[in-house]
Amino acid sequence: MRKTRGFLLIGSLVASSGPFSGGAAAYDGLVVKRPFTLASYTTAGGRTLRGVRVGYETYGSLSPDRDNVIFIPQPFSATSHAAGRYRPDDAEPGYWDEIIGSGKAINTDRWFVVSADTLANLNAGDPDVITTGPASIDPETGHPYGLGFPPMTLRDFVEVHRALLDWLGVGRLHAVVGASMGAMQALEWASAYPDRVARVVAVAGTGETDAWMIGQINSWASAVRADRAWNGGSYYWARDRPAAGLAAALRMVVLQMRHPSWATATFGRRWAEAGASPSLSLDNRYEIEAWQDDTAMALARRMDANSFVLMCRALQSFVVGGASLEDGLRRVRARVLLVPVASDLLTPPQHLHRVQRILEAAGASVTSREIAGEGGHADDVTRIGSVAEDIRAHLEGSDRRSARTSAEGSP
Amino acid sequence: MRKTRGFLLIGSLVASSGPFSGGAAAYDGLVVKRPFTLASYTTAGGRTLRGVRVGYETYGSLSPDRDNVIFIPQPFSATSHAAGRYRPDDAEPGYWDEIIGSGKAINTDRWFVVSADTLANLNAGDPDVITTGPASIDPETGHPYGLGFPPMTLRDFVEVHRALLDWLGVGRLHAVVGASMGAMQALEWASAYPDRVARVVAVAGTGETDAWMIGQINSWASAVRADRAWNGGSYYWARDRPAAGLAAALRMVVLQMRHPSWATATFGRRWAEAGASPSLSLDNRYEIEAWQDDTAMALARRMDANSFVLMCRALQSFVVGGASLEDGLRRVRARVLLVPVASDLLTPPQHLHRVQRILEAAGASVTSREIAGEGGHADDVTRIGSVAEDIRAHLEGSDRRSARTSAEGSP
Repeated sequence: MRKTRGFLLIGSLVASSGPFSGGAAAYDGLVVKRPFTLASYTTAGGRTLRGVRVGYETYGSLSPDRDNVIFIPQPFSATSHAAGRYRPDDAEPGYWDEIIGSGKAINTDRWFVVSADTLANLNAGDPDVITTGPASIDPETGHPYGLGFPPMTLRDFVEVHRALLDWLGVGRLHAVVGASMGAMQALEWASAYPDRVARVVAVAGTGETDAWMIGQINSWASAVRADRAWNGGSYYWARDRPAAGLAAALRMVVLQMRHPSWATATFGRRWAEAGASPSLSLDNRYEIEAWQDDTAMALARRMDANSFVLMCRALQSFVVGGASLEDGLRRVRARVLLVPVASDLLTPPQHLHRVQRILEAAGASVTSREIAGEGGHADDVTRIGSVAEDIRAHLEGSDRRSARTSAEGSP
Repeated sequence: MRKTRGFLLIGSLVASSGPFSGGAAAYDGLVVKRPFTLASYTTAGGRTLRGVRVGYETYGSLSPDRDNVIFIPQPFSATSHAAGRYRPDDAEPGYWDEIIGSGKAINTDRWFVVSADTLANLNAGDPDVITTGPASIDPETGHPYGLGFPPMTLRDFVEVHRALLDWLGVGRLHAVVGASMGAMQALEWASAYPDRVARVVAVAGTGETDAWMIGQINSWASAVRADRAWNGGSYYWARDRPAAGLAAALRMVVLQMRHPSWATATFGRRWAEAGASPSLSLDNRYEIEAWQDDTAMALARRMDANSFVLMCRALQSFVVGGASLEDGLRRVRARVLLVPVASDLLTPPQHLHRVQRILEAAGASVTSREIAGEGGHADDVTRIGSVAEDIRAHLEGSDRRSARTSAEGSP
């Protein structure tokens, strides 16, 4: 079964056919990617876009009262594809398949899980991604937006997803559960719509991007901009694409998602090719370099350079609530489970510890459970199974609205 | 007084005029940069270069017995300029001026300090640097070597400096003292010439470059190579230089030399320009981005991209002794003072702790003293004053040749 891209008329905020027609929303092991279209959307920065589309997919069945919905915002380099397979012969399921499905921690026998692409999703060249971003055609000009596309914030991602859930007829969310940039959106959701979010699970991520992260992300974005083929963001009609700059940026990203202990255990100082000593020729590589290069190139092939640059800025701009982290978190009324990753060098555990302290001081219900290991930031996916039961318990716990529940754990 | 570049005939391994003529070698507050020339040098990889030149400078006076020499190999992005000023109006003295000079920890009233540029020094465009590297003219072709210049190892740097010291008539060194890549060379010196090195002070650095560092450095070098103006290393005759790629690499380097706590304390989330919110335009920047950009551009202006790429490979290739770290360190007979930097994320303290364990197991005399603080790797220079007295004591301690002295401290 090949996925067929649906088509919704622009402006069909409530489609008469409904998003659940055809039974495709039930999670039967094959996942259907669907588009959601907004006639117009005005960004937090005040720029209006027409005909905004983002993709979404669902697992499980919506209850008659529409009160069993768990929303999953996407991580930075990922898509809506959190679980299951689009096609029987897909090599890999979605990134969190280990915890989403029938009988799993996010139990699709019980919960209706909605997972969505963001605006300006990096993977604009992936046929399974539906996103409006710099590579999309600007209906005003008939040409790709390029950097005419406005800078985004994570709040913009939340707003478009809120419109999606409105359109699905879903009011209050049982939970918002996300990893990394998904965790950041989950916290933003709980701050922006305190009465609509009953629970949050934030795995890795941060409450605000600090100076160090801003600088690291500047290094990423600058590597793209240093590629002349990027040409100030105008390359869609050019023969050459800024693939080299994008790959240079992604070489940093894929490494920084890991940890020195993981790198030593996985690669050590081995050469990529027997007999080809890197100390004798620049053409020879270490094994970790070959892994970085190959992983980065593969990612770069489906990514759009301008989307990458805009997404970098969205990450840099992030503070829960948009101004002060304390003010942003004070609005949260959800029960929050924070899952810092012990060996995370991209968003070290201290970030979520700080979120916990602020939430506790504000009297919110917050618990934490760390993912142990030495895999680095990537353990938010690779070792998610180690906290599956904590996530299950958090989701299946009673839906008390008290904001005075004392914390069950602390960092 | 402006520095005058001296000239030595190729092949003058022992110059009849001698390197100390004219009294310029005495450290009188103004430093003279001098060239050292080797008629030919064959690299560890087996490639022969003709007419190799590196610069050196000295502080203090050589004793009649030539037994008071401290050698300072240079850090990665630095030069031989460890102390003093070349000109009265120089804005800054050498990087370790705080500990090198009359009465200071490395007391030039007592020690004759020799500090030298490496081959392929990054700062090929700095008029105070003397180095043979990819930007130098290949006497065989009359054109710049470019990537015809052979890959280097830190052992090559040591060998050229050994030839310099031979030429200066200096046999046994009282000490080799270095920071970062200088510390790595100091350990290499002690392994390669155990009978010539009485003491080592290694500030930051490592005994071998691990997988994580290899990957980080791959990110740096790849950013240079992603700039089309780099053109596979052939750009010396071109109108455009790969300055953008080099700056992209240096944006990473300058940040990774620091630490998140330093970044937060120094910049926080402040904007570079009041009223110019980075969330509204890609043209607006955070203050830390402006610092990164400006620092990287300034460095890039005097650096050569091919030298950068080759120096990256030299760092990646580094293991004391060239094969196994254990075997390399087992040869060391010097008394070693290790100075890990607590907040170092580039060469974390664990690296020197491992060196200490191996040296201790081999029965070597080794002590350690950590530089506290939150400045990151850069504290090897900015906070060197905090360990000045430890360095002084190590240098002024008795010159026992026993290799069985028990360690005075451990990590």
